[in-house]
Amino acid sequence: MSPPLTKPTASLLTAASKPPPPLCTFLFLIIFCIVGFYTLYHPNLNPRNPQIAMRYRNLFLSSSSNSTLSSYLRNLTRHPHLAGTKASLDTTNYVYSHFHNLYLETHKAEYKALLSYPVHASLSAHFSNGTTFSFSLTESETSGKVVPPYHAYSPSAAAYAKVVFVNYGREKDYRALGVMGISVRGCIVLARKGGELSRGGVVRIAESKGALAVLLYARGERMRGGEEGGVERGTVMRGVGDPLSPGWAAKEGGERLGMKDNEVLNKFPKIPSLPLSFQNAGVILRSLTGPKAPLEWRNSGGYSVGRVGPGPIMVNFTYRGEEKEVILYNVFAVIRGFEEPDRYVILGNHRDAWTYGAVDPNSGTAALLDIARRYALLLQMGWKPRRTMILCSWDAEEFGMVGSTEWVEQNLVNLGAKAVAYLNVDCAVQGPGFFAGATPQLDNLIYEVTKKVKDPDSHVSVIYDNWAARDQVISIQRLSGVDSDFAPFLQHAGVPSMDIYYGRDFPVYHTAFDSYEWITRYGDPLFHRHMAVAGVWGLVALHLADDSILSFDYLSYAEQLKRHKAVLSKFLNQSISLNPLSDAIQGLALAAKEAENEAKILRQQEARGDFIALKLRALNDRLMLAERGFLDVDGLQGRHWFKHLIYGPHGDYESKLDFFPGIGDAIFRSTSKSRENQQTAIQHEIWRVARAIDRAAMALRGQFT
Amino acid sequence: MSPPLTKPTASLLTAASKPPPPLCTFLFLIIFCIVGFYTLYHPNLNPRNPQIAMRYRNLFLSSSSNSTLSSYLRNLTRHPHLAGTKASLDTTNYVYSHFHNLYLETHKAEYKALLSYPVHASLSAHFSNGTTFSFSLTESETSGKVVPPYHAYSPSAAAYAKVVFVNYGREKDYRALGVMGISVRGCIVLARKGGELSRGGVVRIAESKGALAVLLYARGERMRGGEEGGVERGTVMRGVGDPLSPGWAAKEGGERLGMKDNEVLNKFPKIPSLPLSFQNAGVILRSLTGPKAPLEWRNSGGYSVGRVGPGPIMVNFTYRGEEKEVILYNVFAVIRGFEEPDRYVILGNHRDAWTYGAVDPNSGTAALLDIARRYALLLQMGWKPRRTMILCSWDAEEFGMVGSTEWVEQNLVNLGAKAVAYLNVDCAVQGPGFFAGATPQLDNLIYEVTKKVKDPDSHVSVIYDNWAARDQVISIQRLSGVDSDFAPFLQHAGVPSMDIYYGRDFPVYHTAFDSYEWITRYGDPLFHRHMAVAGVWGLVALHLADDSILSFDYLSYAEQLKRHKAVLSKFLNQSISLNPLSDAIQGLALAAKEAENEAKILRQQEARGDFIALKLRALNDRLMLAERGFLDVDGLQGRHWFKHLIYGPHGDYESKLDFFPGIGDAIFRSTSKSRENQQTAIQHEIWRVARAIDRAAMALRGQFT
Repeated sequence: MSPPLTKPTASLLTAASKPPPPLCTFLFLIIFCIVGFYTLYHPNLNPRNPQIAMRYRNLFLSSSSNSTLSSYLRNLTRHPHLAGTKASLDTTNYVYSHFHNLYLETHKAEYKALLSYPVHASLSAHFSNGTTFSFSLTESETSGKVVPPYHAYSPSAAAYAKVVFVNYGREKDYRALGVMGISVRGCIVLARKGGELSRGGVVRIAESKGALAVLLYARGERMRGGEEGGVERGTVMRGVGDPLSPGWAAKEGGERLGMKDNEVLNKFPKIPSLPLSFQNAGVILRSLTGPKAPLEWRNSGGYSVGRVGPGPIMVNFTYRGEEKEVILYNVFAVIRGFEEPDRYVILGNHRDAWTYGAVDPNSGTAALLDIARRYALLLQMGWKPRRTMILCSWDAEEFGMVGSTEWVEQNLVNLGAKAVAYLNVDCAVQGPGFFAGATPQLDNLIYEVTKKVKDPDSHVSVIYDNWAARDQVISIQRLSGVDSDFAPFLQHAGVPSMDIYYGRDFPVYHTAFDSYEWITRYGDPLFHRHMAVAGVWGLVALHLADDSILSFDYLSYAEQLKRHKAVLSKFLNQSISLNPLSDAIQGLALAAKEAENEAKILRQQEARGDFIALKLRALNDRLMLAERGFLDVDGLQGRHWFKHLIYGPHGDYESKLDFFPGIGDAIFRSTSKSRENQQTAIQHEIWRVARAIDRAAMALRGQFT
Repeated sequence: MSPPLTKPTASLLTAASKPPPPLCTFLFLIIFCIVGFYTLYHPNLNPRNPQIAMRYRNLFLSSSSNSTLSSYLRNLTRHPHLAGTKASLDTTNYVYSHFHNLYLETHKAEYKALLSYPVHASLSAHFSNGTTFSFSLTESETSGKVVPPYHAYSPSAAAYAKVVFVNYGREKDYRALGVMGISVRGCIVLARKGGELSRGGVVRIAESKGALAVLLYARGERMRGGEEGGVERGTVMRGVGDPLSPGWAAKEGGERLGMKDNEVLNKFPKIPSLPLSFQNAGVILRSLTGPKAPLEWRNSGGYSVGRVGPGPIMVNFTYRGEEKEVILYNVFAVIRGFEEPDRYVILGNHRDAWTYGAVDPNSGTAALLDIARRYALLLQMGWKPRRTMILCSWDAEEFGMVGSTEWVEQNLVNLGAKAVAYLNVDCAVQGPGFFAGATPQLDNLIYEVTKKVKDPDSHVSVIYDNWAARDQVISIQRLSGVDSDFAPFLQHAGVPSMDIYYGRDFPVYHTAFDSYEWITRYGDPLFHRHMAVAGVWGLVALHLADDSILSFDYLSYAEQLKRHKAVLSKFLNQSISLNPLSDAIQGLALAAKEAENEAKILRQQEARGDFIALKLRALNDRLMLAERGFLDVDGLQGRHWFKHLIYGPHGDYESKLDFFPGIGDAIFRSTSKSRENQQTAIQHEIWRVARAIDRAAMALRGQFT
């Protein structure tokens, strides 16, 4: 609060630098006193004045530019830039220079992590008549510069066996096969992607059934532009981050576990796998004999699947990959907070891509670079954010959120105490329609901001209107998935998080066709959707960085938890009590109400010009820390790196809950427990969640018992 | 900072309440402005002015009173007040009323925890000639009102067997017996207390050797006053806190594990044990035949032990106890901070006692009550602490820090974010000589404060002088033990902690002779030592509550870590690298130096009257949070509730390190690992400690990478 006082002082004293007559001095003194008090007490001259803040926010919105966004994306996507490759370094430097040239405080954080690359892959089919068909694993993708389709961290191995089609590869699909008398033991399984399982989950279940290898193809929905030949790359590692430094940062020279360490071995599948194009999958599917596929398997995304195998053709499968420790680069631009440099609002997007990465992730990178440009403009116009903003460009997300995870692990104590929110954008523009995921205390802020940003696909309305028109009840997704860089921030560090994008399920996902051309032809020809995402992203961040009281609404969280509880109750029998959960949610709602009232009072005091810097700080700290309460030090059973008990991934099983992952485990994971013991385990997990909500409420209330 | 401004404003406006002439108004306005600025900028009128703070501290010291302390102790120790009993409730109410009558904000936090009480115990010896000797297990203790000597949480069981003397009951003692060809399988073991093992550790090792029961006697040093008959009660539970709610608060109606749950069963020994008086132990020792005891066993604390047994006498051992869930009461007095109510300086002492508890713990309780009285006096004189102070009176410490542990578990998020320090006093006065334990960043503050407080045993000097005269190099112990309520605060929550006392190894420990009379005859007849402890305790707390910059010196921590490293290096072979540790310690020292420089600059700015409230807060937060860095989310292997990697308990083995418990585990715990695997495990634990120190340094530096 000192600058408004000292600034006029300084200028007035300069004006009086040649000895003035005594009366003048006296008058000056009076004016000085009055101006001083006026500055202190009259909110209109205060840089935290809402009008002034609004002027900066309007400047942010009006300085958006689609041509700039387009040129950023063009520059970012000239070459494929897989993490750990030379081309990736060029992209790193491009982002670094961009921040640096804007005179932002720029730096890199390097880690040395184990990534995985393909060396050789082949697949051929041997028909009973002696003929052989060699699949081209890359021909469908025209560019020779992209990495051949593969699954990162797949072990190197060969298999020569019959094929069984296993639908989505879920436990229940194997049960259906079992009913038909089909076992996959000693076979290669062919699965389609979809359902609730991750890529690695499909492989892991196949492994547990005795399969020798896995072929995975993506659903063949009609692609705009005829790129049906794309093959979906991806990682099959379990968990996130560098596999050799689980739980700690992979600093150069730091500790690494050996490749034979059990904790490391557990992260990788033991059988190899390869992604397959839809066409190649069709060749195999059509050749299968054996029992008829169940009705709901038949329309397998375009093909009519007839029979599940095994055989009669024999498939020869070979994959050789190589694991390498490579240097990763996270790039940061930091805008130091003026009043609260030790509170962070973090914007993040990854930079590495399987191929050209125009959608995934560089539509988001272009938005990030444009936000940086516009923030730099605001700074030139005199803007000083209250809190520190960190713009992050992550490396190696595609291999399992490696860059962001290592950084979060290294900075855990500081993030835990200081991170206000993490705002993620991965594939910013995949098509039409606004989508948002967030922890629920951010919902209202997102609604408000989308009422300020123009809708890219209409001439009159704001994003919110079209969003509301599409969804009957506007829905913000919850961040239980481990599919982008919010995972370490939310699920490991308990930082309130957001993830936004335009469109979803884009057809060129992880293929060689994810290029600038695809964006300009289909995804966002005018780059207005890019503008929209950048607008929402940057504006949410501006609010969190500048608002004297954080726009965190925990009533919204409590309401969401109530709905989660209602869904959960459908899967429980009467012996299980949900009372602990009800009580805890009620407690959170009460604490939220109190915090809201306190915020009201502080806003009044602030409007009066009272000195309440430490009171604001105390309330904001509680709003920030409440989310940490949902962390449990022991984490989820069997994957204890995941500490968040409300939102986190379920394991390799089909869960009907995309929240309360620990409770989901206890209900849906197959177990050798007796029924009574399983009920006890479910009740215990309910208690754990209830206690987590209690902790959040206590952190929000800020009182000790 | 508003009061200095608003106060004069208010009074001046009152003086001007009848309409004054315009010139007067004008002059008033000028004076008002000038006074306002003067108040803001001139430090002498500021309540945070060092001189004013010093006046309050002097008032604190001068208001000390030995007669008051004596009367508090008298009142607290009229009856035995074992936790969970009716008499204990009286003590609870006494402390509550005391706080309340001082007009302090007073409250209780209740928990329902599983404690353990004796129902029946008997012991008799059957001689080969057919005669029987029944030991009186209580006769030596004259008072019938105290609980009979027992081991809390010992299982109920009987045994009829020969006795083997096992010295301290350590692994190496059993090895020595093995060399003599003696096994304890099927025998009752007789052990003396001492060495590195906890009571529970002795029982657990005996159990692992196949013993049927354990008799434990305390060393028979010559007691002042002839109370050699005392028998030492104690707990044999493993770990701390309510055994049925491990890791969470034992709130009424909250979750409880069943008694058959493995986690619960693991906390209790499987064989029964009883404490024995020195005299009764002598009867058995003298009867033993068999091989001669090793030389260093012979002088067993007064007795010359001849032979180790087994037999020939048969001993009939019976113990029946009862576990009960009882209500525990922690009592609190809270003095809200004026500027930073959301930062806590916590003073704690337990209230429950095995018997009368005059030394253990009520000498400390008397000091706490006197500090409350003196703080209340300061408040009346206008003192407003900058930060919140919490005076805590814990229940059921004797059973395993139950009261404090449940509270820490319940308030973990708030404590993690807000607790500046925990200052413990258990047995305040045990005899002559000042002793202190602390985390090393507190060392200098303790030195400074002991230079201000009069030495109780001399007429001229301060505590520091006599302390320095006794120890050639003043030594402050480190808090690795789990023997008082600092354990949950430091070892689970990472709060900088202190523990101080006068005298040590007092002879009436946990016996019926720990009474007011013992204090007035031997421990502290004039209550000057009580005054000294209260003085140091209260003054350290005043500094931490009022100083604008926390007196935390992390250079001292780094120096201590260096010395720890030097000791550790003696137990390692050349294949182990200590470089990670050296680098991390150097990093911490650097960060400490930077923090010190920053503090210097801020002190200058403060002296100039700059507004630096948020800057001070930011630095203090870093000083506070650095200790949290030493926590590791996974904790110590096999006892993961203990999260602090620098200070924490070792397991049931003899460790030569009383720091780095995880490294100690890897070195000294007997293991079935191959030599190579053991070296890998040691190196891994060294890495973990190095990363913990890195985290502390990063928290202190407050920068992200």
